[in-house]
Amino acid sequence: MFSQTVEYSLRAVAHLSMVAPAIVSVREMASSIHVPEAYLAKVLQHLADSGIVSTRRGKGGGATLAKRPKDITILEVVQAVDPLQRILTCPMGISSHGSQLCPLHRHLDNALAAMIESFGNTTLHQIMNDPNPIKPLCETPKVNLIPLNLPKPSGSPLNLS
Amino acid sequence: MFSQTVEYSLRAVAHLSMVAPAIVSVREMASSIHVPEAYLAKVLQHLADSGIVSTRRGKGGGATLAKRPKDITILEVVQAVDPLQRILTCPMGISSHGSQLCPLHRHLDNALAAMIESFGNTTLHQIMNDPNPIKPLCETPKVNLIPLNLPKPSGSPLNLS
Repeated sequence: MFSQTVEYSLRAVAHLSMVAPAIVSVREMASSIHVPEAYLAKVLQHLADSGIVSTRRGKGGGATLAKRPKDITILEVVQAVDPLQRILTCPMGISSHGSQLCPLHRHLDNALAAMIESFGNTTLHQIMNDPNPIKPLCETPKVNLIPLNLPKPSGSPLNLS
Repeated sequence: MFSQTVEYSLRAVAHLSMVAPAIVSVREMASSIHVPEAYLAKVLQHLADSGIVSTRRGKGGGATLAKRPKDITILEVVQAVDPLQRILTCPMGISSHGSQLCPLHRHLDNALAAMIESFGNTTLHQIMNDPNPIKPLCETPKVNLIPLNLPKPSGSPLNLS
């Protein structure tokens, strides 16, 4: 449903959000978020064209967020790289339908509209500050198990005699 | 968002629903729903594999719905040809996440789940019997304007003198 490009672009902005305001090289980011370097460079270019990230060439160059995570919605990222397209006119080109969709295409478009609304109402900041202990892009730290000083059992654990 | 294959498969079942229980040849259907014949044949094969349509080879052959439109959901059709796939495990393969998604992937998956639920709750029958005057696949009939026998106006329509 969501393209590889959408997945990679969301990983990229999530990573940049985590390290903000640092400028991260494409190579370093590609390694961190498990995306092929050339693919990531293209994704970042699209995100830069849409004003979501800033890029700097040369030594010490790389990418950084161009806006605050509060001002970047999930929808903005998706639309920058692989836009969700509403069904605005009859896909069959039936002229009498015009912009009035039939129930079939209206139903499909309603589902798209709901998804677009949901993504448009969710910012990168919300995603990155969700109270969920599992954080985007990161291994979840293992819980340190503190051994309890229980009294040593004596005798057979199951003495049925 | 929705592939050409999804669009074509929905047109096919909508057409078969309209002409049910007739068996329609692939050529005839392809022409009616504006889908290339070879493409439609493949789509129908997928729909037949999923038990949504029945096909018959040879002269007088073609396709027909294998079930009542009340028993076919939009989701079933979509899943037969180009399945919507929920995000069930971390797409980055982060082992500590397991089946517990991070907020980023949880958000994407929630949007997918909502779409799947909506499609799963809508049958072909509902779509084809929607009260909307615009019907799937069809030109909307032009309204016949019946001339009213109004009395012939006399004199100037705006006699302000």
